[in-house]
Amino acid sequence: MESRVGTLLFVGLGLIGGSLARALRGTGFALRMTAWNRSRASLQYALEAGLVDDAPADLAQAIAEAGMIVVGVPTLAVAGVFELIRAHARPGTVVTDVASVKGSVVAAAQDVFGAVPPWLVPGHPIAGAEKSGVEASRAELFVRHRVILTPLADTDPAALAIVRGMWELTGAEVVCMDVAGHDRVLAMTSHLPHLLAYALVDSLACQPASDDIFRFAAGGFRDFTRIASSDVVMWRDISLANRAAILLALDGFTDRLAAVRAAVEQGDAGTLEQVFARARAARGRYLQWLEQGANAGAPEREREE
Amino acid sequence: MESRVGTLLFVGLGLIGGSLARALRGTGFALRMTAWNRSRASLQYALEAGLVDDAPADLAQAIAEAGMIVVGVPTLAVAGVFELIRAHARPGTVVTDVASVKGSVVAAAQDVFGAVPPWLVPGHPIAGAEKSGVEASRAELFVRHRVILTPLADTDPAALAIVRGMWELTGAEVVCMDVAGHDRVLAMTSHLPHLLAYALVDSLACQPASDDIFRFAAGGFRDFTRIASSDVVMWRDISLANRAAILLALDGFTDRLAAVRAAVEQGDAGTLEQVFARARAARGRYLQWLEQGANAGAPEREREE
Repeated sequence: MESRVGTLLFVGLGLIGGSLARALRGTGFALRMTAWNRSRASLQYALEAGLVDDAPADLAQAIAEAGMIVVGVPTLAVAGVFELIRAHARPGTVVTDVASVKGSVVAAAQDVFGAVPPWLVPGHPIAGAEKSGVEASRAELFVRHRVILTPLADTDPAALAIVRGMWELTGAEVVCMDVAGHDRVLAMTSHLPHLLAYALVDSLACQPASDDIFRFAAGGFRDFTRIASSDVVMWRDISLANRAAILLALDGFTDRLAAVRAAVEQGDAGTLEQVFARARAARGRYLQWLEQGANAGAPEREREE
Repeated sequence: MESRVGTLLFVGLGLIGGSLARALRGTGFALRMTAWNRSRASLQYALEAGLVDDAPADLAQAIAEAGMIVVGVPTLAVAGVFELIRAHARPGTVVTDVASVKGSVVAAAQDVFGAVPPWLVPGHPIAGAEKSGVEASRAELFVRHRVILTPLADTDPAALAIVRGMWELTGAEVVCMDVAGHDRVLAMTSHLPHLLAYALVDSLACQPASDDIFRFAAGGFRDFTRIASSDVVMWRDISLANRAAILLALDGFTDRLAAVRAAVEQGDAGTLEQVFARARAARGRYLQWLEQGANAGAPEREREE
């Protein structure tokens, strides 16, 4: 494959950027890959592991030399990177990002550039791992996983094609959604569950004798709270950046939980059965989607009460 | 090992009873194993798979012939089985159960027998699987998993020793707790998470275009909602049987969630960071407990946002 992008620069090289660099090695997508990161230790690792060819200390200079840029910094740091891109990027440089909230990225672009530039293609790979950081990266992270792109009316079809082509090289399934739809769905299926898991573990941790509680927690608790081990700064930023959609999802959930609480208090077996059966059936349909399509990941496995 | 129990009867043969029967085959713990179940299809399977030696249709007769009984029916059906045991069991028959709530089992025993009999040892194996039913049973289900026994002041030490010995033959780690402590810990670490998972999936399933929501849900959602695939009747009964402890746990969680909601609404980054970091650290300690002791199960694996 003939490279279409020259130098591909990763601004922020964590789990996602590192895995993307690994997946693109040897594909010929970029002539050269470079990275900048706030932590130099990550860059040292990336250079030694051969993920990137260079790790310039001067971000402005690195931006000026890039033919394409993948922005992989925490959601609320994206605007600052856009400022540097506005000041230093060459005309024609294609930019995409991997932030978990797309409305805030679009708003940052509007603030910095006056309007969302045609060469900016907002994106969000639906993949992650228990551990964060470039050290946890792996080339297969995106295989059979969805990458959502949220192009706008003025997005350059050529830029979109380049970003789509990049992700397809990783084995991902690329789908397009509108910005608000992405943020609404992710609030319900990702951001809300993270807040619930964090709130649950924190409420147990603040109990007296919490060590005893965790000591007798069953293995199902491990699955349920897995996402409470996620990166703190990333999820602080997501919570702030997708506020409106998260509050809406949270209030819908709280209403349903209040109904469940009332049923428990009143000994209302019928309502409990109804809610549990409806949820069980819905999850069955969800598993069918998973089996049929992307995000299949690991198979269902044992869980404990 | 010389059998100490003669005929071991399973009243209710699902995932737990079936796995226990499999684990005890060939250990010599019982001379004979029999089972009664509401669904005869499960018994047919158990007979054909060689899990039990006989599946008598007459439960009263089966109880009269048993030297030891494992009650494995849904929590709120335990009292009915106790009635039959009171009417038909021979003196000296040791009885244990596997219900997820122990206070309601003790209350049922007090109702039926006037007091908790010395030969009744309430128990709860902390193990389960995605799929329920005897067809999903396996001999290794309890290996390195905790079994909690909640003996009372009048429990016969010989009966306790027999029940403990039975579970230890399966590879489980047996621990004793008081009834209220068991129900409080399980409410927080198992019953509450189940209600949250059911409520979340149901609240999403009742959204317009819910199929699109589930279609774009990430894999982390699968782990978080795994327990929403649990058996409906079992969890209806648990919700009703452990009402007080569940309401307490639920209200503690709801308070914490309200604080998280306020922080999101007010853009209070500091509080969000604090809650997330505290939860992340607590889960890290929990994982250490898992690694050191029982319930280790499968290793941590990939999750998706």
